[in-house]
Amino acid sequence: MKFTIREGKPEDCKDIERMIMELAVYEKMPDQVKISHKELERDGFGPNPYYKFLVAEVPEEQKSKDGYTKVGYALFFYTYSTWKGRVVYMEDLYVMPEYRGKGIGKALMANVAKVGKEKECVRLQLSVLDWNKPSLEFYLAKGAEDLTAKEGWHHIRFHGEALNNLAQEAP
Amino acid sequence: MKFTIREGKPEDCKDIERMIMELAVYEKMPDQVKISHKELERDGFGPNPYYKFLVAEVPEEQKSKDGYTKVGYALFFYTYSTWKGRVVYMEDLYVMPEYRGKGIGKALMANVAKVGKEKECVRLQLSVLDWNKPSLEFYLAKGAEDLTAKEGWHHIRFHGEALNNLAQEAP
Repeated sequence: MKFTIREGKPEDCKDIERMIMELAVYEKMPDQVKISHKELERDGFGPNPYYKFLVAEVPEEQKSKDGYTKVGYALFFYTYSTWKGRVVYMEDLYVMPEYRGKGIGKALMANVAKVGKEKECVRLQLSVLDWNKPSLEFYLAKGAEDLTAKEGWHHIRFHGEALNNLAQEAP
Repeated sequence: MKFTIREGKPEDCKDIERMIMELAVYEKMPDQVKISHKELERDGFGPNPYYKFLVAEVPEEQKSKDGYTKVGYALFFYTYSTWKGRVVYMEDLYVMPEYRGKGIGKALMANVAKVGKEKECVRLQLSVLDWNKPSLEFYLAKGAEDLTAKEGWHHIRFHGEALNNLAQEAP
């Protein structure tokens, strides 16, 4: 299977929108997706982009049964550790089911790591659902640490009314 | 207690370095801090800053026993949800022990929420250690959700050799 990994461009955003939805279906929360290619274009390609992404592409003769040649993506951004410095955070890693097991996911993730190293990032971080054992095992086998299991870090989120109320308390 | 909250400037980085260390001592991992004000200045104030911060300051007549007037900080950056869009992520929230219980922490957090809302962020996220019950209860009482407890999200990290190996696998 031939494939290439390249930096995402604005014209990829419709395919990213499609694959974001496919990934949400796999994660059993498709009704949670509120974003479209319009927001993706605005937020990924302005003067201060909120994220970046890589696309995995196959040649035309290996297109999917539905006619797609963009068959996977990794979306990431830069965060910061006040202990260690720059961090690259991989928000999404996705490969279409019919293209799995061919090294595309590994190649996407390795390229995110490479891009991060070029920016002097000292960590690659991501999040995984605890029932998603294949993904968890894939990351651990590659040498990752599960910081929730090891140190007890929990994800906390404010949104909706809780976020509005908080912002209104600002002196 | 009078205090003001304002945007961080490069000349605050020495105080931020000091308070990062104080926070790491509280989190029982002071030997983990590898950053100094030099990296903080470089990474927070370039053309594409990796983070931003707010400082809590008290008047000279209320300076700390060690002579400090910068008594707390909140450090944050922007991340991205492929389901919802822009997110503001609060990496650190710290108030010096002798200034706690005076609303400074709440004011810092509320201002991070406000800055995030101004940037059209739909979430404020953060991480907390599961043994740090006072902080966890503080956030939950304000309407936050514990996504690790509720949905099973785990933090995964590659660093050191694992990150180097990953980057070297990039095709």
